Amino acid sequence: MSALKTNPGNTFEDFSIGQVIEHATPRTITAGDVALYVALTGSRFALECAEPFAHTLGFPEAPVDDWLVFHMVFGKTVPDVSLNAVANLGYAAGRFLAPVFVGDTIQATSEVIGLKENSSGESGTVYVRSIGRNQLGETVLDYVRWVMVRKRDKASPAPTAHVPSLPDAVPVESLVVPEGLVLEAYDPARAGSPWRFDDYAAGERIDHVDGMTIEEAEHQLATRLYQNTAKVHFNQFEQEKGRFGRRLIYGGHVISLTRALSFNGLGNAFKIVGLNGGRHVAPCFAGDTVYAWSEVVEAEPVPGRVDLGALRLRTYGVKNRTAADFPGRIDGGYDPAVILELDYWALMPR
Amino acid sequence: MSALKTNPGNTFEDFSIGQVIEHATPRTITAGDVALYVALTGSRFALECAEPFAHTLGFPEAPVDDWLVFHMVFGKTVPDVSLNAVANLGYAAGRFLAPVFVGDTIQATSEVIGLKENSSGESGTVYVRSIGRNQLGETVLDYVRWVMVRKRDKASPAPTAHVPSLPDAVPVESLVVPEGLVLEAYDPARAGSPWRFDDYAAGERIDHVDGMTIEEAEHQLATRLYQNTAKVHFNQFEQEKGRFGRRLIYGGHVISLTRALSFNGLGNAFKIVGLNGGRHVAPCFAGDTVYAWSEVVEAEPVPGRVDLGALRLRTYGVKNRTAADFPGRIDGGYDPAVILELDYWALMPR
Amino acid sequence: MSALKTNPGNTFEDFSIGQVIEHATPRTITAGDVALYVALTGSRFALECAEPFAHTLGFPEAPVDDWLVFHMVFGKTVPDVSLNAVANLGYAAGRFLAPVFVGDTIQATSEVIGLKENSSGESGTVYVRSIGRNQLGETVLDYVRWVMVRKRDKASPAPTAHVPSLPDAVPVESLVVPEGLVLEAYDPARAGSPWRFDDYAAGERIDHVDGMTIEEAEHQLATRLYQNTAKVHFNQFEQEKGRFGRRLIYGGHVISLTRALSFNGLGNAFKIVGLNGGRHVAPCFAGDTVYAWSEVVEAEPVPGRVDLGALRLRTYGVKNRTAADFPGRIDGGYDPAVILELDYWALMPR
Repeated sequence: MSALKTNPGNTFEDFSIGQVIEHATPRTITAGDVALYVALTGSRFALECAEPFAHTLGFPEAPVDDWLVFHMVFGKTVPDVSLNAVANLGYAAGRFLAPVFVGDTIQATSEVIGLKENSSGESGTVYVRSIGRNQLGETVLDYVRWVMVRKRDKASPAPTAHVPSLPDAVPVESLVVPEGLVLEAYDPARAGSPWRFDDYAAGERIDHVDGMTIEEAEHQLATRLYQNTAKVHFNQFEQEKGRFGRRLIYGGHVISLTRALSFNGLGNAFKIVGLNGGRHVAPCFAGDTVYAWSEVVEAEPVPGRVDLGALRLRTYGVKNRTAADFPGRIDGGYDPAVILELDYWALMPR
Repeated sequence: MSALKTNPGNTFEDFSIGQVIEHATPRTITAGDVALYVALTGSRFALECAEPFAHTLGFPEAPVDDWLVFHMVFGKTVPDVSLNAVANLGYAAGRFLAPVFVGDTIQATSEVIGLKENSSGESGTVYVRSIGRNQLGETVLDYVRWVMVRKRDKASPAPTAHVPSLPDAVPVESLVVPEGLVLEAYDPARAGSPWRFDDYAAGERIDHVDGMTIEEAEHQLATRLYQNTAKVHFNQFEQEKGRFGRRLIYGGHVISLTRALSFNGLGNAFKIVGLNGGRHVAPCFAGDTVYAWSEVVEAEPVPGRVDLGALRLRTYGVKNRTAADFPGRIDGGYDPAVILELDYWALMPR
Repeated sequence: MSALKTNPGNTFEDFSIGQVIEHATPRTITAGDVALYVALTGSRFALECAEPFAHTLGFPEAPVDDWLVFHMVFGKTVPDVSLNAVANLGYAAGRFLAPVFVGDTIQATSEVIGLKENSSGESGTVYVRSIGRNQLGETVLDYVRWVMVRKRDKASPAPTAHVPSLPDAVPVESLVVPEGLVLEAYDPARAGSPWRFDDYAAGERIDHVDGMTIEEAEHQLATRLYQNTAKVHFNQFEQEKGRFGRRLIYGGHVISLTRALSFNGLGNAFKIVGLNGGRHVAPCFAGDTVYAWSEVVEAEPVPGRVDLGALRLRTYGVKNRTAADFPGRIDGGYDPAVILELDYWALMPR
């Protein structure tokens, strides 16, 4: 009787193209979430930290950090999408569409847009487009991710394979600049960096210098805050029997740490607007020290705006070594220290 | 001179029947407390997480988690009641009487309602009825607990023994349904479970499946948040000389973890209304992984309400093994893995 | 190219007398910060915990803990002042001038008021007066600190030495009592101590009894919350090659713990108003257990107020032993267990 009442998570067989999942636990984002996010990451971007700074940019109040919004949406999708995931394979076509403020309530919905069984017959790739909406029904975030999910039964028939066509990057024309944004009064001294859009060039590489060691309690607090229920992050009793013998750190926590570290070198990259792609190249564990570096992939003007530009950045998270020599892709793979490759668009004042 | 100014805690001799203690440090509960509670427990009940969800149930805003309220009240009683406690023996007759909202200020008062010296002459049991009130003077929580407290002097005379008569369980008739509660618009998809009151039956057992490993920093953060000052939770220098050699985790943190885990199987048990009894069967330490399972003891209609019922639940916290085979009482004692047995009433929509 | 864009921190050569530095990242203080501060320290002073208690004292709302304000200001100065500091040498002339409330935004500015190269030619002492201002431009905190900062190049010429004249203590006449403060309705039972100003006398020593063990995650959370970027607190990969082999705990976290511990004995010392001096005598590491004791240095009436007095306190933080025998200065140095000596003024009702 009881087995019926608990959520075993969906297996590959449970997904079908076009299926829409309304995820549980809408979440009102509070000043408490924002403070915890700062305590967990050390983020220093002035726009999210200071109401008056946000006002000078035309925001009614300080917006919530973009990655915090992402994690809140992502976390809600986990019980339905990736509880039985073997791996989180990739992201694409992500756009941050409307700022989120303290007091807004975010709820998440996912649509299955692709399915492909693996040749082993033991698992398959599920592509979902996940959407976060606020209490007014406005979409605040929209992204695709794909995960490898176990099958319940190797013998169950494979669905017709459908791999969605996904862009390599979000075109700069479809990035959304926050409504009402003005940059005349942008104060680089208070923002913490004198460097503006035109100081950056495609191909430039920036070592973010600092390193941050992660503790077990920290990533667990972060991941629970987002109500991400993936078992691998929390259960040492189970994990110690597994492949790594340890709890895995939620890849999103690594994203947030690299973003916070990137303040040192990208302090005026004040707003994330697009997520082009991302790969959690290797696992990260408590005790690991994370460093980061970024490459400017593109530096593009934003249509209709003379006051800002969009930097397409590829940020690498690296562990247990500095990023001074820019460890990244090598020989079609990655330097063994790389744990994250993230490709995204950020706005910067000109 | 200085010894006079510090609180040594009360010993058994300091308590007398009818004594009323106004506890220190009234506490305004904030959005920060609520966010930390989610980060520390991973709780996912929609009522406390989402303002719009709370509105659909007739609440003016999202209420504070019932156990967070309990811990705030409990914490305030510690410096006066249990600083010299040898053991926290039990709870009874607990009722959650009025919802608490962010911005409410809780203060706590205890009355001594029972005393019984132990035959050893070295300690005795103190029974207190503790009450939490909000800034309007409304009682929000009312419960009895009893603790074994050391005597200062073995030779001091024993008080007349008085053991209060306590109910095995709070009668369903005296449970208080939050004022204005309406359930017509209750959305089980957003709440995260399709199972309603009538789907549960007395005797049913539910394995909550997931496990959560506790870190030292986590339980210390939680216990300090509640301003619970019991020394055993915080001082490793002292504890390493003691019986366990380690800091003990506040039993209330285990209660909160089991409640959060119970979401998986009891997702619509949206409101705790009564605390019938509880026992911290064995200590819990950092590094332990907590699992939980629940038995439905009674499934009772609530007088005057056709839209909800009350489940009397007995939840067991278990450590370092799964709860799949429902480890509980055996041979008049408990399975060695059991750390908590908690008997309480929760409301669920029909 | 990228080296230009990251902040290497200032070296001794970069400072000049009269130089004014506007620090980055103004910070709106929220209910989340306040809750985290309680969770990290266990502070129990009623004024900061309860809105109604604050109202009875004439505050419009509960003020933010004084040391939390201090850390927020201090943290902002780190990237510019002490990123390359060898040691944080001292504090003087600190005054808490206006209460800070949730929603206030603090920004920090420092002026270089002293410079003195060390005889080694490898480093020098930089004296800065740091000021925290709220969004109205009111100064909320003003203090001097001096740090030893590395030189970039031993050969660079020494500046003219200038050591500012600093008071041994802030004169009681220049302490600022919060505007509108009234103490008629001060409730010692809810504050948690019956002892008032006139119960204390110069020379009195108070053992604060309790001890608190610090976890790595805790001090990292605290220090990131304050956006203090000093590398020694966060990067184990780097630290393990260094002198201690471990991350150092931000000295301000120790200040906050001793303040929280001092509640037991100084529960009515409700408001810090002056910082006379302070020394981080020895480093503190995760796993250490902190105890504290205080000496009353002076007990002074406050000009124009019959309802309160100012206690000049010298609080010692001690690690891995109790403070029952008041370990402090010995033979011109300190007991080896001492980690902090802090000299400050606190207000107390008469």
